[in-house]
Amino acid sequence: MALYVQKYGGSSVADAACMRRVAQRIYDTRQAGNQVVVVVSAMGDTTDDLIVLAKQVNPEPNEREMDSLMATGEMASSAILTMALHALGARAISMTGHQAGIKVDGTHLKAKIQEINPKRIRHHLDQGFIVVVAGFQGMNPAEDVATLGRGGSDTTAVALAAALKADRCQILKDVDGVFTANPRVVPAARKLDEIAYEEMLELASCGAEVLQSRAVEFAKNYGVVLEVLSSFEVKPGTLVREEDEAMEQMIIRGIAADKNQAKATLLGVPDTPGVAARVFKNLAAANINVDMIVQNVSAAGITDLSFTVPADDVAKTKRVIEPLVKEIKAAGLDFDGAIAKVSIVGVGMKSHSGVAYKMFEVLAENRINIEMISTSEIKISVVIRAPEADRAVRALHDAFDMGAAARQPPARKKPAPQKKK
Amino acid sequence: MALYVQKYGGSSVADAACMRRVAQRIYDTRQAGNQVVVVVSAMGDTTDDLIVLAKQVNPEPNEREMDSLMATGEMASSAILTMALHALGARAISMTGHQAGIKVDGTHLKAKIQEINPKRIRHHLDQGFIVVVAGFQGMNPAEDVATLGRGGSDTTAVALAAALKADRCQILKDVDGVFTANPRVVPAARKLDEIAYEEMLELASCGAEVLQSRAVEFAKNYGVVLEVLSSFEVKPGTLVREEDEAMEQMIIRGIAADKNQAKATLLGVPDTPGVAARVFKNLAAANINVDMIVQNVSAAGITDLSFTVPADDVAKTKRVIEPLVKEIKAAGLDFDGAIAKVSIVGVGMKSHSGVAYKMFEVLAENRINIEMISTSEIKISVVIRAPEADRAVRALHDAFDMGAAARQPPARKKPAPQKKK
Repeated sequence: MALYVQKYGGSSVADAACMRRVAQRIYDTRQAGNQVVVVVSAMGDTTDDLIVLAKQVNPEPNEREMDSLMATGEMASSAILTMALHALGARAISMTGHQAGIKVDGTHLKAKIQEINPKRIRHHLDQGFIVVVAGFQGMNPAEDVATLGRGGSDTTAVALAAALKADRCQILKDVDGVFTANPRVVPAARKLDEIAYEEMLELASCGAEVLQSRAVEFAKNYGVVLEVLSSFEVKPGTLVREEDEAMEQMIIRGIAADKNQAKATLLGVPDTPGVAARVFKNLAAANINVDMIVQNVSAAGITDLSFTVPADDVAKTKRVIEPLVKEIKAAGLDFDGAIAKVSIVGVGMKSHSGVAYKMFEVLAENRINIEMISTSEIKISVVIRAPEADRAVRALHDAFDMGAAARQPPARKKPAPQKKK
Repeated sequence: MALYVQKYGGSSVADAACMRRVAQRIYDTRQAGNQVVVVVSAMGDTTDDLIVLAKQVNPEPNEREMDSLMATGEMASSAILTMALHALGARAISMTGHQAGIKVDGTHLKAKIQEINPKRIRHHLDQGFIVVVAGFQGMNPAEDVATLGRGGSDTTAVALAAALKADRCQILKDVDGVFTANPRVVPAARKLDEIAYEEMLELASCGAEVLQSRAVEFAKNYGVVLEVLSSFEVKPGTLVREEDEAMEQMIIRGIAADKNQAKATLLGVPDTPGVAARVFKNLAAANINVDMIVQNVSAAGITDLSFTVPADDVAKTKRVIEPLVKEIKAAGLDFDGAIAKVSIVGVGMKSHSGVAYKMFEVLAENRINIEMISTSEIKISVVIRAPEADRAVRALHDAFDMGAAARQPPARKKPAPQKKK
């Protein structure tokens, strides 16, 4: 008997009809002879609605209270889904994060799972129950509810799969799996059968919204085999797993574009040691996630220092940096929100040279200017103008032959794949 | 420094504007130098909306899951109210029933409070916090949430007041207090300054919706001084307390009408011992609350047996009794939903004779037929036709001089109170 952890997101359980459909899917998995633990998000827009309500009574709501408030969304949906399972004749029981034994640290709004004691889940699985766990939450040492941050239900599912040594952790979504690029931008994008943890991790942190990086990291660390698949149709999705030789050979596995970044530039900074350190120390202290950093060549001891931050953090960045401008004798501070970060990701890069060169050439051919560059072993990211992002993604997808024709296993020699415009 | 427990119902916290208003009221109580524990219901129609949703996925939802679901309503509103208090600059913290130390028995949907361990509340009160507790819920021995039944937040408030030895338990509502009769039916009805526990208890169980009988019983047993008052205006309400000589002398303190009753009649029942016992044993086993019972004089060994049940329980009563009809050789089973129970209540009855006579006379003068009668030491109830209920209440209110003029203390001799039409 296999043990499956299935996670359903908010749009998969948006209303009663969705709940009944999801319940049927879960019940079928159980009837096929598997044990099932389900992790469920809040229904539809519940979390957003609760945030709006909170801000109506307090523009800066207390984090502990926000956690208590938001966690109710997942508690409610786990109970409703359990009722829908009962209606099908299934034995099922709902559990809050606390009841499921999920212990988190004390950081409200972005708590980290510290330990899972799955005793109560095990007990009910052994008795033939489907266990439906409220995602996104756990109990902290102060015995308060704390939430795991946006998309935290993915992390709940992976952590439970690790703790229960589940055979597979399925993330059911309103997409069919992980694609080579966003299909709404690139019509030729195709669903991947498999992807390596590292690739998924890079894509997730580069703006691909299909999985939370934290969940992927957790899966990688604990060797949990993840599957991203459709909650609407029963068909195989994308396996996220350890890279091995059986995995399809692709130089570039995916392309992501992130338009939720802004570029900050400190103008006329005296090029003396310690200035950059002060800037980034203060940003780190304010919990602002700096992604890319570029410092221009110094001219007459003066330089410009640019870095990207999440667009949501622009106001906060301003508050942190503006007092510094005078202190470090800079000429000013500038923000540019009209940028996009486009990234290509693939473990194949490790063994193929010339990938960066090809990327830059393709962009140049398309007259797209590169403003910043950053690379890792399996990723190249560039910052370009936001309106050019979709065109850049399409051109790169095409140039690296990532479309439908590449579906053929590379072993069988085939004619050169047909280019798509 | 006095300790107040304040309970706000769902209509008092229906939206963000209500939340802010209630927060101001609580903050004012705190600023006046009092410690405050707040008990709050779910916002507006939240509980009803959750029940509708549950029934959409399962017409007969599991009771444990219903409790998990409904309890989220109070959890959310306690967090929102706490945020609204923060916005005013108050120190405040929300607690679920569990966090507030409320332990209940295992009966889902109508759990009873078994024990309160107010350690965490005390700790925060001592540090100057306003503590906002989610009403209507507690943790049962299985570590599941269980709810106290409709209106259970009143009980939460009284139980917390008892456990904390609070100076007063205030139930803030959208009415000004307890009235001599429903002011929508009787324009001359007046707000009572005080009422004895026993009177409030009888009125609550006779259809007056101002307080839950269970909450009043709890207050009586633990000597908690209750006050029912307006959540909209700051002015004294009605004190519910132990009867003593300082309390205003009134023969009848209040009149209540309950239209949510139905009369069931078992026709042609053989008048043999044990028949009634079987009927009422089965009803009790099905948890159906039988209120009044009348058995006609037997003629030729055959009698009719009538009893009243809550209108909501008619279908269930049918299911329980119909199989019995044949078994006990009765002629049939009849239901009459067009009845009302009108009750007059007052501790003054104990020392005044002729009250029942006067009631029957007033009804007769108004050509209102009495179908059933039941009495206690401080209450007389009659069942009449439903459409005559309002007229009956007005006539009785008038005949017993319960209107505004009776506000004068009876010690000072005054001209006879002016009658109102």
